[in-house]
Amino acid sequence: MFSRGFASDNNSGVHPRILEAINDVNHGHTIAYGDDPITQKAIDRFKQIFGNDIEVFFVFIGSAANVLGLKAVTQPHNAIICAETAHINVDECGAPERFTGCKLLSVPTVNGKLTIDGIKKHMHGFGFQHHSQPKVISISQVSELGTVYTVDEIKTLADFAHSHNMLLHMDGARLANAAVSLGKGFREFTRDAGVDVLSFGGTKNGMMYGEAIVFFNQQLAHDFMYTRKQGLQLASKMRYISAQFLAYLEDGQWDSTARHANAMAQLLAKKVSAIQGVTITQPVQANAVFAIVPPELIHPLQSEYFFYVWDEDRSEVRWMTSWDTTEQDIDRFCELLEELMRTVKR
Amino acid sequence: MFSRGFASDNNSGVHPRILEAINDVNHGHTIAYGDDPITQKAIDRFKQIFGNDIEVFFVFIGSAANVLGLKAVTQPHNAIICAETAHINVDECGAPERFTGCKLLSVPTVNGKLTIDGIKKHMHGFGFQHHSQPKVISISQVSELGTVYTVDEIKTLADFAHSHNMLLHMDGARLANAAVSLGKGFREFTRDAGVDVLSFGGTKNGMMYGEAIVFFNQQLAHDFMYTRKQGLQLASKMRYISAQFLAYLEDGQWDSTARHANAMAQLLAKKVSAIQGVTITQPVQANAVFAIVPPELIHPLQSEYFFYVWDEDRSEVRWMTSWDTTEQDIDRFCELLEELMRTVKR
Amino acid sequence: MFSRGFASDNNSGVHPRILEAINDVNHGHTIAYGDDPITQKAIDRFKQIFGNDIEVFFVFIGSAANVLGLKAVTQPHNAIICAETAHINVDECGAPERFTGCKLLSVPTVNGKLTIDGIKKHMHGFGFQHHSQPKVISISQVSELGTVYTVDEIKTLADFAHSHNMLLHMDGARLANAAVSLGKGFREFTRDAGVDVLSFGGTKNGMMYGEAIVFFNQQLAHDFMYTRKQGLQLASKMRYISAQFLAYLEDGQWDSTARHANAMAQLLAKKVSAIQGVTITQPVQANAVFAIVPPELIHPLQSEYFFYVWDEDRSEVRWMTSWDTTEQDIDRFCELLEELMRTVKR
Amino acid sequence: MFSRGFASDNNSGVHPRILEAINDVNHGHTIAYGDDPITQKAIDRFKQIFGNDIEVFFVFIGSAANVLGLKAVTQPHNAIICAETAHINVDECGAPERFTGCKLLSVPTVNGKLTIDGIKKHMHGFGFQHHSQPKVISISQVSELGTVYTVDEIKTLADFAHSHNMLLHMDGARLANAAVSLGKGFREFTRDAGVDVLSFGGTKNGMMYGEAIVFFNQQLAHDFMYTRKQGLQLASKMRYISAQFLAYLEDGQWDSTARHANAMAQLLAKKVSAIQGVTITQPVQANAVFAIVPPELIHPLQSEYFFYVWDEDRSEVRWMTSWDTTEQDIDRFCELLEELMRTVKR
Repeated sequence: MFSRGFASDNNSGVHPRILEAINDVNHGHTIAYGDDPITQKAIDRFKQIFGNDIEVFFVFIGSAANVLGLKAVTQPHNAIICAETAHINVDECGAPERFTGCKLLSVPTVNGKLTIDGIKKHMHGFGFQHHSQPKVISISQVSELGTVYTVDEIKTLADFAHSHNMLLHMDGARLANAAVSLGKGFREFTRDAGVDVLSFGGTKNGMMYGEAIVFFNQQLAHDFMYTRKQGLQLASKMRYISAQFLAYLEDGQWDSTARHANAMAQLLAKKVSAIQGVTITQPVQANAVFAIVPPELIHPLQSEYFFYVWDEDRSEVRWMTSWDTTEQDIDRFCELLEELMRTVKR
Repeated sequence: MFSRGFASDNNSGVHPRILEAINDVNHGHTIAYGDDPITQKAIDRFKQIFGNDIEVFFVFIGSAANVLGLKAVTQPHNAIICAETAHINVDECGAPERFTGCKLLSVPTVNGKLTIDGIKKHMHGFGFQHHSQPKVISISQVSELGTVYTVDEIKTLADFAHSHNMLLHMDGARLANAAVSLGKGFREFTRDAGVDVLSFGGTKNGMMYGEAIVFFNQQLAHDFMYTRKQGLQLASKMRYISAQFLAYLEDGQWDSTARHANAMAQLLAKKVSAIQGVTITQPVQANAVFAIVPPELIHPLQSEYFFYVWDEDRSEVRWMTSWDTTEQDIDRFCELLEELMRTVKR
Repeated sequence: MFSRGFASDNNSGVHPRILEAINDVNHGHTIAYGDDPITQKAIDRFKQIFGNDIEVFFVFIGSAANVLGLKAVTQPHNAIICAETAHINVDECGAPERFTGCKLLSVPTVNGKLTIDGIKKHMHGFGFQHHSQPKVISISQVSELGTVYTVDEIKTLADFAHSHNMLLHMDGARLANAAVSLGKGFREFTRDAGVDVLSFGGTKNGMMYGEAIVFFNQQLAHDFMYTRKQGLQLASKMRYISAQFLAYLEDGQWDSTARHANAMAQLLAKKVSAIQGVTITQPVQANAVFAIVPPELIHPLQSEYFFYVWDEDRSEVRWMTSWDTTEQDIDRFCELLEELMRTVKR
Repeated sequence: MFSRGFASDNNSGVHPRILEAINDVNHGHTIAYGDDPITQKAIDRFKQIFGNDIEVFFVFIGSAANVLGLKAVTQPHNAIICAETAHINVDECGAPERFTGCKLLSVPTVNGKLTIDGIKKHMHGFGFQHHSQPKVISISQVSELGTVYTVDEIKTLADFAHSHNMLLHMDGARLANAAVSLGKGFREFTRDAGVDVLSFGGTKNGMMYGEAIVFFNQQLAHDFMYTRKQGLQLASKMRYISAQFLAYLEDGQWDSTARHANAMAQLLAKKVSAIQGVTITQPVQANAVFAIVPPELIHPLQSEYFFYVWDEDRSEVRWMTSWDTTEQDIDRFCELLEELMRTVKR
């Protein structure tokens, strides 16, 4: 039995109902590569949520959902504007540049969320052949700093993008956590807020693997099946991704796990704020807690409950909660933290 | 319950022991992206088979194993020589060219297997800057026509490649079927026969997803972890691929499923050859049967047991058996085939 | 003073009128990167020839004209069908694959010219996501074997392409030689015959550098200025390419040089055919003569007049004439050839 | 006759001695693609300057010299660190990302020159597979803001790079202006200061076209001839680039033109500083003058002497001098500027 930590929501395992769903479709033969009835059903489920006039494609991972989704809506001479902290900018080993040919233009942010003001410094050189042409604004919902865009913030960004003949892309690796945080349905803060292309994640919320790319404008998905295949993201035994999504989207499964993870982050935040010497650095709006702690207790703390240092210079750490985090985990973690804090020299 | 057909071994489901193995590791947290103990164990298992001085990387699918493995050993100005029927040449939507930048030089073959003679027409232009420089010979074991290279054939190709400062790549999507067919261990007809880079597949033999790239020269894998990540093939919840491979490689699991599939192909071949009007077109050495049948019975036959037409002009079809094919499946299929044959006008 | 040979028309120098034209625009400042009046004038000249509703872009070399032109009309999941001998297939070091991401599908030909029959073997897999989707047929006019497509042959290929929702690309590195050979204006056997994208060359017919990409459908050139820049083919001092094209297209300059080169090839062909032991292997329709000669006299002949061996196995050589080839060159070459032939053992 | 302006040194024409050199080699045939004696001589001339153990390759333009040089020393998973203002970052339409696959990490600077301090924020994530691995520091000498790195500054950057297993690349589009400014030979502030790869420009200092890539470590140039060809930068009639370089490097040709351009910038700076309302914003160390002027006089001034606005918000403009700028040009320009200034409301 592996112990649980606060390193990442993708360190957790697979929710039993997801495994069960995989098991349930494990009989007989179905056509490979997505032409099976389970996949059709899963796609239909997405259409129920987002509207019939969408296109949905399943891929293996979130990075692929981002990169292929961006590829679908750009030409290599385009530029993609994103937060400096964006997953596409710092955690995909240059895959966006490599696969789209585009330039990434990053914007420093206070809390991981793009603002028009920050974007504006890149809004020039349109029509100038020497300059990569800005085409997409990409945001992460939840952001990499655990913050959540409001529906209005998204609308503002979408309107801005569209008024400049650009598109709005959303990296939704933690979309369920955002939905719970906002108290909104998926559609309200994506399609209805003006998002054009969405990476819809599930792995960080209890699935084993598999993400969806959702195009809210079907034109954008023209030829995308070839892009997915050439992008090495077409699963042969697709039914096992589709079955996961069906279970994930059924009976509020996604909601209960995300709700739990978010609640655990609130609990953790509440408890650690009560400990002297801990400073929370970001609003806790989903399932992440960012905090500054004395550097000397990071190692001993990590050795019991693994987590990542976010900014070594500031001694800032990131604690992620997950669908399987327990109150007990948090209690014990806080006890240890407090205990270690007492050893810190003042 | 879906009925079984003869379309492809990837239309079949996941072997119960594989699912069980996934279930067994589904507890607690482990570090994501491959730094977990299950993945380490799975890698060690590959080292037991192939030797300690190898490098192994898990990816999602066979196309990715091929393309990233080839990328690791080429520069964009290189050329890759393969059979006209090779998966990399006809079934990966140009991903090899797109991701490696290389030119593919294809060779017509009689039975899906490359020969020195066929390769030779591309062995020119070395040192000529206008010409893509041949660097890799890529073979599929089992070949796409269901045939199997002998150890000697592989050695001959490897020696030829090495003597021209080239490498030998093997697409082993059906490696287990080849091992059973040859009656050899994996190492004997790969590393020991001179193969430099191997795509080691499992999905077509009972796994859910996940393939391995095995480098027999560790130098070739230098920096490969970045290539995998940038190639969008780094699984976050890697333990679920690793657990599958552990089960697959344990207690002859791979052997029993592949042995069964191959035996079913022999049975199928035997039974259909007895039916007048069916001509088997390739030696049946693994789990594929290629045959010419009267065109008018293809559709009715497919509607009961789906399979693919291989060459419409010749009315040649491909029937694949799988780890879950039953004798009953074959009996019924042959009965139907015979019955339909009676309706064919002579 | 370098001596003249028969290696290639790009071994020759620059026609004096071209140099003069360069000299004539060499005064004062003009806006760089093509926004200058000389470039505008050159573009207008192309429009006079081909019609006003075209787009023209200058690049440095013929390979770039081909590759960028093809990139403009394809997506990476497409395939490009061409002759096995096509420059894009054998002489561009994989640049077409690298820059377009496409697969090249080559067709063996008798005389360097594609036929519908040859193309047909690649016309399958449409709509099948695993398969690179054929999008362009690319022909070379003059072909790499010195032959010239008739207007009807081009029309047939164009109609075939268009009826399959594909496009016709023409590599016109030796377009002037083709025009002279056909006795037709440029437009008649390009745009009017159904060509969609044209590489219009001049370097092989007396220019120093600079080629044009001509789009006969302006839609196809949408965003092309960025493709050219990103493709590293935007000249800063563009006026010097434009001035060359203006001179090249003025007063039949291109015609007189190409006419001369073609005439010299006819003369050469006539004279060498009279020499016993020389077999001409391709129709001489432009400025190339292909011939089989005894292998032992190739080296001595090359040491006086350099040329390339085309097919070592057959002892087939290629002799190219140029705008500056003289009758005397041919006389002396044939004398030497005859003399050497006498030394050949029978 | 076109009038001269201050838009860019590449708006100027070709120096008569360069044209003469082109003319001088314009006779007879030479082997194409660089195997000619003129090219050999030009390469030898570079070796006299930089040492025999280098590799030199000619390409068409500076962007290509940068991009291909960077490609030669990187893998797609690498990152390239450069100034925010670097040509590779803002003026090559994403070609570096597209062709190398790398991520560009930019650093804001005060004066266009990188410092260790600025670079440091990108020096992390080494060995972390999710992160593009920094491999090259790229500097422009002269910088895009007209400033010049001292030899010591270059040495410091080179040492820093090498101590992190990285390389130093120099974009030397205006290398001659830097040499004159520093009063140093080319070698002293490139190879001897630790530069690994150099783009050696000539077009901005009187050549027509053609740049050189110089590798100070021959290992780095291994296979580069294929990279150049595949990168569409191999000139067929190479002799005309080589002849230009030979003339450029002969008898201090490059020195006299660059010296003149730099002197004209000093004169211009001196004269405009005397005009009230003009604020020079960057040290004038080569042939560029950056200045803030009242926005309302930009258009009238441009209509007589074209130049570019550098920063619209600050009303900052860039004036470039060239090898052909005359004192009279400057006098007239300053007169006009003064005259317009009088019309500005205070």
